[in-house]
Amino acid sequence: MCELLAMSANVPTDIVFSFTGLAERGGVTGPHVDGWGITFYEGKGSRTFKDACPSSESHIAKLIKSYPIKSEIVVSHIRQANRGCVSLENTHPFTRELWGKYWTYAHNGQLSDYQEKFVVNRFQPVGDTDSELAFCWIMEQVLVEFGPKQPEDMNQVFTFIAGLADEVRALGVFNMILSDGIDLMTYCSNNLCYITRRAPFGKAKLIDTDVVIDFDKETTPNDVVTVIATRPLTKDEEWHILKPGEWKLFRQGELQACN
Amino acid sequence: MCELLAMSANVPTDIVFSFTGLAERGGVTGPHVDGWGITFYEGKGSRTFKDACPSSESHIAKLIKSYPIKSEIVVSHIRQANRGCVSLENTHPFTRELWGKYWTYAHNGQLSDYQEKFVVNRFQPVGDTDSELAFCWIMEQVLVEFGPKQPEDMNQVFTFIAGLADEVRALGVFNMILSDGIDLMTYCSNNLCYITRRAPFGKAKLIDTDVVIDFDKETTPNDVVTVIATRPLTKDEEWHILKPGEWKLFRQGELQACN
Repeated sequence: MCELLAMSANVPTDIVFSFTGLAERGGVTGPHVDGWGITFYEGKGSRTFKDACPSSESHIAKLIKSYPIKSEIVVSHIRQANRGCVSLENTHPFTRELWGKYWTYAHNGQLSDYQEKFVVNRFQPVGDTDSELAFCWIMEQVLVEFGPKQPEDMNQVFTFIAGLADEVRALGVFNMILSDGIDLMTYCSNNLCYITRRAPFGKAKLIDTDVVIDFDKETTPNDVVTVIATRPLTKDEEWHILKPGEWKLFRQGELQACN
Repeated sequence: MCELLAMSANVPTDIVFSFTGLAERGGVTGPHVDGWGITFYEGKGSRTFKDACPSSESHIAKLIKSYPIKSEIVVSHIRQANRGCVSLENTHPFTRELWGKYWTYAHNGQLSDYQEKFVVNRFQPVGDTDSELAFCWIMEQVLVEFGPKQPEDMNQVFTFIAGLADEVRALGVFNMILSDGIDLMTYCSNNLCYITRRAPFGKAKLIDTDVVIDFDKETTPNDVVTVIATRPLTKDEEWHILKPGEWKLFRQGELQACN
């Protein structure tokens, strides 16, 4: 199993605080030592930092913790390998381009008997994980359903993807984060929760390491920031726990009403 | 215009020495202050570090200079914007997946009257540079020509791409680096050169900053390392200058005989 972390915000926001908690689970408070990755969207562009070594020891993870990259959408993952060896090509998040947008995906869980279902053609996996193959299959179904030009109504696309995610969940555990750089979709199989922070902001304390943040000092009154994780990252705050099969779409930090 | 740097080697090799020289051209010895990027292949996987700020000032470039990532193929670029604004989505290298491999591309030069020619469908640009659009057009032509399954003979594919590069060069200046993670292709419009280092190794001094390296201390007798750049990076070494329209293919540091 692995851990997921994602963020959707209405202003470029740094995720140092949450990532610091997550990174501890990569070898200190958690057993997820088989690599980690984080994708930041900045405008239409995105950049991904990855390492096949534990996040608690990684030089690059240290950079991310000390050098705040401000982003409106972040997708992050720390890995405990089950399917696929420990290597850079098997490290999440995975990215593919469709409709002139970078789509970024990360998965927590494990699938069985999936090879027959996930026939892919135009989107092919580079590594050998169930996760990346499921991503390629989802992207391929989206391309087949909607064609090479993006439809106007993206809610319709994410609703279609939620239907695909139901099919994938039938093969095992499938907690998923997916973003096209504008919307952030989260699909729950058994472990996903979120919190939306807005004024009046309070303080929060990480569960995994001894760090406290006063969001009031880090934000402006109009900021809306949603953080999604497989397990709550903070004490003293109420996280919304998603139910199996439930999915949510966030844009600029706000929950969208499409499901 | 911009600067390109690439490497092909038969053993995982760090590019800190060459990148140190290149990064100086991003604001110190050169005017290329509009972002920079570098892609490292490690096995089938790849990771790209990018920044829209000058490489000579970038925190992430500092990490690359101080933390040697060992790789068999590297593609790097520092940008002086002509077409397209300064932003992350316009920062090279660009990557797309085809045939279960990550293809990475960087371009030096400028094209004119290209919008009509570069009709794309399956591979679409995310940013608004001539460079990324040309890359998408090349990938699309390869997909149309060879289909969704990789042909056995990759030399044939790169020869086809060289023909496409001739067409792009007719629209302006097109110095290009392209890799699928196994081969590294370089196409010259007016500025490209390379050097292949092998035993007996000697010393070299960077042109752009006061750094000397003794390759003999950094290598083993079987290492073969080819470095490609828009302009020679070192004194005291003989770089091969490519002619307009000339292209080369390197695998594991060795020049391939396919053109």
